Amino acid sequence: MLQRSNHNRSKRACPVCARRKVKCDRLVPCSNCVKRGQESECIKFVTNKSAAIAANSESEYLPSLLQLWQSYEYWVMEIGLFKTKDITEGSRKKVSIIENLSECTFWQDCLNTEQSYSLLNFSVENLGPLFFGCIVDINELFTQLERYWRRRDKESRTRNTFNDTVAKFDSDDYLWDALLWSVFTLSFYYMPVNEISKIFPLEPICEHLNIDVKQEWTESLQLLIYERYLKVTTTLLMQSDFMNNPNIKFIQVYLILSNTTLQINNNTLSDSLLLQCIQVAKFFNIDFHKQYAEDDPFLGISKETFGKIWFKLCIIDYYQSGPAKKIYINNEIPSLLQHAAFYQDMPNFNIYKKEDNFESFCWKIVSLERDLDQYLVKSFKPQIKTFDAIKRELEIFNKKLDFNKKPKKKSNEISSINTQFENFLLLFLLNLVSWKLQKMCLIHFETADSLSLSMHYSQNIIQLLIKNVSDGNYIFNKHPWVLKGLSRIISFYSYYNIFVESPEIEQLYETLSDLLSVLPLLLGKKVNNLKFLIVRLNKLGVLWEKVNVVGSLTGSIHPVFKILQNDIKAITRANRKVSVMTNAMHLLGRNDAEEGSGEDEELMLQTESEEFRLIVSQFEAEHDISEIISI
Amino acid sequence: MLQRSNHNRSKRACPVCARRKVKCDRLVPCSNCVKRGQESECIKFVTNKSAAIAANSESEYLPSLLQLWQSYEYWVMEIGLFKTKDITEGSRKKVSIIENLSECTFWQDCLNTEQSYSLLNFSVENLGPLFFGCIVDINELFTQLERYWRRRDKESRTRNTFNDTVAKFDSDDYLWDALLWSVFTLSFYYMPVNEISKIFPLEPICEHLNIDVKQEWTESLQLLIYERYLKVTTTLLMQSDFMNNPNIKFIQVYLILSNTTLQINNNTLSDSLLLQCIQVAKFFNIDFHKQYAEDDPFLGISKETFGKIWFKLCIIDYYQSGPAKKIYINNEIPSLLQHAAFYQDMPNFNIYKKEDNFESFCWKIVSLERDLDQYLVKSFKPQIKTFDAIKRELEIFNKKLDFNKKPKKKSNEISSINTQFENFLLLFLLNLVSWKLQKMCLIHFETADSLSLSMHYSQNIIQLLIKNVSDGNYIFNKHPWVLKGLSRIISFYSYYNIFVESPEIEQLYETLSDLLSVLPLLLGKKVNNLKFLIVRLNKLGVLWEKVNVVGSLTGSIHPVFKILQNDIKAITRANRKVSVMTNAMHLLGRNDAEEGSGEDEELMLQTESEEFRLIVSQFEAEHDISEIISI
Repeated sequence: MLQRSNHNRSKRACPVCARRKVKCDRLVPCSNCVKRGQESECIKFVTNKSAAIAANSESEYLPSLLQLWQSYEYWVMEIGLFKTKDITEGSRKKVSIIENLSECTFWQDCLNTEQSYSLLNFSVENLGPLFFGCIVDINELFTQLERYWRRRDKESRTRNTFNDTVAKFDSDDYLWDALLWSVFTLSFYYMPVNEISKIFPLEPICEHLNIDVKQEWTESLQLLIYERYLKVTTTLLMQSDFMNNPNIKFIQVYLILSNTTLQINNNTLSDSLLLQCIQVAKFFNIDFHKQYAEDDPFLGISKETFGKIWFKLCIIDYYQSGPAKKIYINNEIPSLLQHAAFYQDMPNFNIYKKEDNFESFCWKIVSLERDLDQYLVKSFKPQIKTFDAIKRELEIFNKKLDFNKKPKKKSNEISSINTQFENFLLLFLLNLVSWKLQKMCLIHFETADSLSLSMHYSQNIIQLLIKNVSDGNYIFNKHPWVLKGLSRIISFYSYYNIFVESPEIEQLYETLSDLLSVLPLLLGKKVNNLKFLIVRLNKLGVLWEKVNVVGSLTGSIHPVFKILQNDIKAITRANRKVSVMTNAMHLLGRNDAEEGSGEDEELMLQTESEEFRLIVSQFEAEHDISEIISI
Repeated sequence: MLQRSNHNRSKRACPVCARRKVKCDRLVPCSNCVKRGQESECIKFVTNKSAAIAANSESEYLPSLLQLWQSYEYWVMEIGLFKTKDITEGSRKKVSIIENLSECTFWQDCLNTEQSYSLLNFSVENLGPLFFGCIVDINELFTQLERYWRRRDKESRTRNTFNDTVAKFDSDDYLWDALLWSVFTLSFYYMPVNEISKIFPLEPICEHLNIDVKQEWTESLQLLIYERYLKVTTTLLMQSDFMNNPNIKFIQVYLILSNTTLQINNNTLSDSLLLQCIQVAKFFNIDFHKQYAEDDPFLGISKETFGKIWFKLCIIDYYQSGPAKKIYINNEIPSLLQHAAFYQDMPNFNIYKKEDNFESFCWKIVSLERDLDQYLVKSFKPQIKTFDAIKRELEIFNKKLDFNKKPKKKSNEISSINTQFENFLLLFLLNLVSWKLQKMCLIHFETADSLSLSMHYSQNIIQLLIKNVSDGNYIFNKHPWVLKGLSRIISFYSYYNIFVESPEIEQLYETLSDLLSVLPLLLGKKVNNLKFLIVRLNKLGVLWEKVNVVGSLTGSIHPVFKILQNDIKAITRANRKVSVMTNAMHLLGRNDAEEGSGEDEELMLQTESEEFRLIVSQFEAEHDISEIISI
C-alpha cells in the first residue's frame, strides 16, 4: 500500500546505516535494516530516544508514542493484518486442477437459468457502482448470459457422447463465462441472506457439502458458497489460458472480484492476478485514454471505459502494494497536490462542478490518502502546508459530493440503491481520508482540535455504517473498504487508550467495538484477526498500568514499548523472504536459523533485566502476534 | 527490447506534436503518433526531408537511408519479427485444460527412468552454462529425479483405484516436476538427432502423433516433440497453482526454458511467465543479493545464486521488452558506462581479472548492447564519446575473455563442452555488440573504417558458427541468440545492398545467406520469416534499380522508400492495440475500421501519382509484410 517514494528525505541516517557508511532511505525501519534483519535497532533509534527520557509525565512521552504508532499502523495494521501470508504452509497444501475443474462443474450445474438471471438482476439493481464503470454496455451482459446458456445446453447434449478431452470452447468463451461468474460471485457476496433463501434451495448444496440438509440459509453458509463461486470464477479464468491470450475481460473480471474480500483473504492470488491485469492493461494501452476531438464515437466510448478501468486499477494497485507486491502502476498518476495550485489559479474553475465519473472521483480521494499514508514509515515530519493543501482538496470534494447528490433528489423521490451505494462509498472514503488527515495532524503537529476533529470524522463514519443498516442497505457494509478503514480507526483509539485516560475516547472506542462485533460475517476471518489485535492492544493497556518503569527497570524502556517494537519486527521479518531458496541446505548441515539475530539478542541481554524480559516473553507467549499472519 | 528512456532528448518535436502543441518524446515514430495512429507522418518527417533532396548521388542519400534503417531495424527486424503477435487469431483457438493434462500425462508416461537420466546427464555434460547458474546445487537435480520416480511409481499404483479427482501432490511437487521437465525440454531441444535416436524408440511416439512408424528420427520430428515437452513443462507449472504459491523454482524453470525458442515463438506466454517471475523475484528479494562479511555460509551460497538469477532475469527482461511488454526490471541496473569512469580512476583495477561469473559477464555485455540499441528509435545523433566509452569497455571484456580461456587449456588438454559453450556464447555476444557499435558509427558518424570493421565482426561471428559445426558443437548454434543476432546482421547488409553496389558486401551477404539456410531446424518458423524478410529486401533492391525517380514521379520520394515506411507503419499499427474493447461495437453500427487512417490516405492521394501508388501496392500485395506477424 505504501510506496517508498523518492522525494522528501530526512536528514539523518539510522545508526546501523551510519555505522556501515551505506545510504539509508530513512524509513522506519529503513529498507537496508529490513533486508539485513536488523530492523529492531532501526526502530529503537526512532522510538527509544525520546521514550527513555520521558519517564513520568504523559505530555512528554505521548509524542514519541504516537510516532511509534505510525510504524505500527503501517506494519501491523496494514501489512501484517492484510498483506502478509505464511507461504511455507501454503506450498504444502495439495493442489489438483482436476479437483478444481470438477468443483467448478458442480457449481455451474447447480445454477439454473432463472437463478442466474436473479443474480444478474440483483447486481444491476444494487451493485452498479461496483462494476458499471468497467463495462462498456451493461446490456451486453444479458446477451452474453443468453449465449452462456446456449453454450451450456449444447455442451450438456454432447457431454459423454464425444471424447471429453476434446476442446470445445475458445479463450473468449471462457472469459465471458468468467465475467458472468464474477458478477454472480459479486451478487452472491452482497445479496441479503433472506433473498438468497428465496432463490436457492438448500438441499443440493448441503448434500454436496456434506452438511445437515435440515438447516436454514445463514450468513456463514453464504460465506462458504461465495468462496466456491469465487473459485468457479478463477477456475474459469485459468481455463481461458489467459497467459497465451491477453484480453481486457481478464481485467474486468478482476475489477469486479476486487469488490469482494478476494484481496483481503487471498492476497497472494490477488497480487498475481493484479500483475497480470497490469500487463494486459499496458498491452492494450488502457493507460492512454485521453480523448481527441477527431476520435470516432466508438473509440470515444472505448476510451471512456478505458479511463474508468485505469482509475479503478490504480486504486486497487495502490491498496494492494506492499512488501509482497512491489511492482505498481499507481505512481504513474502523480499526486493531486501537484495540480492543486493549478486549479486555484484558474479563474473559471468551478469547484461545484460535478466530477466526471465515480471512478475518477474515487481515485482522486484515494490519491490524497496516498499523499497522507506515505508519511507512516517516514522518520521526519511532513510540512504543514502539505496537510493544508490536502484539507483544501477534501473540502472541495465535499462540496462536489453535495452537488452530486442534489439533482437526483429532484427527479426521483427516493434515489436508487445504486446511487445510494455510490454516495456511501464516496462519503466513506472522504471521511476516512479526513480522519487520517486529522490523525496525522495530531501526531505530527499536536494541533489543538485535531483529536476532537478526528473523533468527529470517526463519528461520521459510524453514522454512515449505522445508517446503512437502518436504511435497509446493510449490504453496503460488506464492502472491503469498510473493514480496512475501520481497522485503522479502531486500532488507533485502542492504542491511544493505552496511554491516555479519556472518557470521550473510551466512549468512542466502545461504539467502534460494538460496530466491529456486528460487521457482516461475509468479510471473513480477517475480522477475527482484527478483533484479536484490538483485544491485544487492550491487554497492553493493562500491562502499561501494572508495570512501573522505575526501580529495577531503570534506564530501560517500558515492556509495552518493547512488545510493540517486537510486533513490528515480527511483521517485517515475515516479509523479508530471503532465505527461502533452501535447496542446498542439507549440504551445509545447518538449520534455517534466523541469521544475524543471535548478535541482536546478545545486545538485548546486556541492557534488559531478567524481570523485564520475563514480562515481555510472557505477554508474547499469551498473545502471539504471528496469529494474524498464519493462513 | 528497446526502452524509451528519459534522458537525451532531441531538440525538435515532430510536426504532428508541434501542430497539436503537445509534448513529443522525439522517438521515431514518436509515442504520441503511434498512439494516435499517425506514425506515417512522423516517420516521413525524419526520413523524407533529406531523401527528397537527394535525387542523384549515392553519397547524398545514403545517410538518410541509413537513418531510416535504424527505425526499420527496431520495428521490423526486432518488434515485427520477434515480438508481434496477431492476438485476434489466437483467441479464437479452442482451449482445454483437460486436453493439456492428458497430453501431459501421455508424454510423461512415454519417458522411462533410463531415458530421463540420459536427458539429465546430457544437460549436465553439455548445457552447463545455460542452467548451472540458476541452481544452487546440481546434485539436487539427481536427488529430485529419484523422488520424481518414486512419486510416479506410487501414483501409477494408486491410479484408478482411488477417485482421480483427489489431489495427491502439493505445489512444490509440481514445481520440482516442472523443473526436471524444463531440463528434459532443454536437453531434447539441444540433443543431436542421432543421440536422440539412440535413446528414444520412435514407435510409441509416431503412433500417438498418428504418423508413419516406418520413418527415422529427423530434426523436424525432434522439433515437434520438443514443443510437446515444452507444453508438458508449462502444464506442470500451471498444475502447481503458482499464482497462489510464489516459489523461486518458478523462476528457475522459466530461466531454463528461455534457452530454447520459447521467447521467440510464444512471446505472449513468455511475457506472462516473465512477469510472474519478476513478481516472485521481488517477493523473495532476489534483487537484493549483496553479500556481507557476517552472512553465514548458507546465506552466502543463496545470495550468490540470487545474483546469477537476477542477472539472467535482467538479460531476458531486456531482450523481451517492447510494446507488448512494458513492465521491465533491467532498468534497475544502470548502464555500465556510469561506472566506467570509476573503473578508470581506480589505480589498482585489474582489467585482466576474471569476471565473477558467467551470468554477470553476460549481463555486462548485454548492458552495452542496451546502451547502443536505445539509439535505434531516437531521431538525434548519440555523442561520439559514448561510443568511445562502449568501445573501451568491449576491449576490456575481450581481454578478460582471453584470460578466462587460458587456465582451462593448461589443466585439461581439451576443455569440456560446457566450457566451450560458455566461451562461444560470450564471444558471440561480444562480437555482436562490437558489430552493432560499428554499424552505429557508420550510420551516425560515417567513420572511415566502420563499414570494414563491421564486416570484420560479421566474419568473426560467421567463423564462430562454422567452427561450432566443424568442432562437432553444432548444437551451440541452436541458441536463440544466434538467430536474433544473425537476423540483425544479415538484414543490415541486405538493406545496404539495395542502395550501394559493393562486391565485398555482396560476398558477405552471400556467406550470411548460406549460413541462414543451414541454421538448425529447431529454431522454428521464425527462420522462415527472416528468410522472407531478406528475400523481400532483395526484391526491393530490384525495384530500386528498375524505377527511376524522375519524370512522372518528380517531387515525390522513391517507391522503395514508401514501402519501407509503410512496413514500419504496419508493425506499429499491429502493436497499437487500442480498439480491441469492442463489446459495444454493434451499438454504434460501425465496423472496426482503422480510425483516422482515412484522412491519412487522402493526404497521400494529393501528392502521389497513380503510377507511384500502383508500384507500391503491387509490391505490397506480392510481398505482404503482415506475413511475419501472423501466428
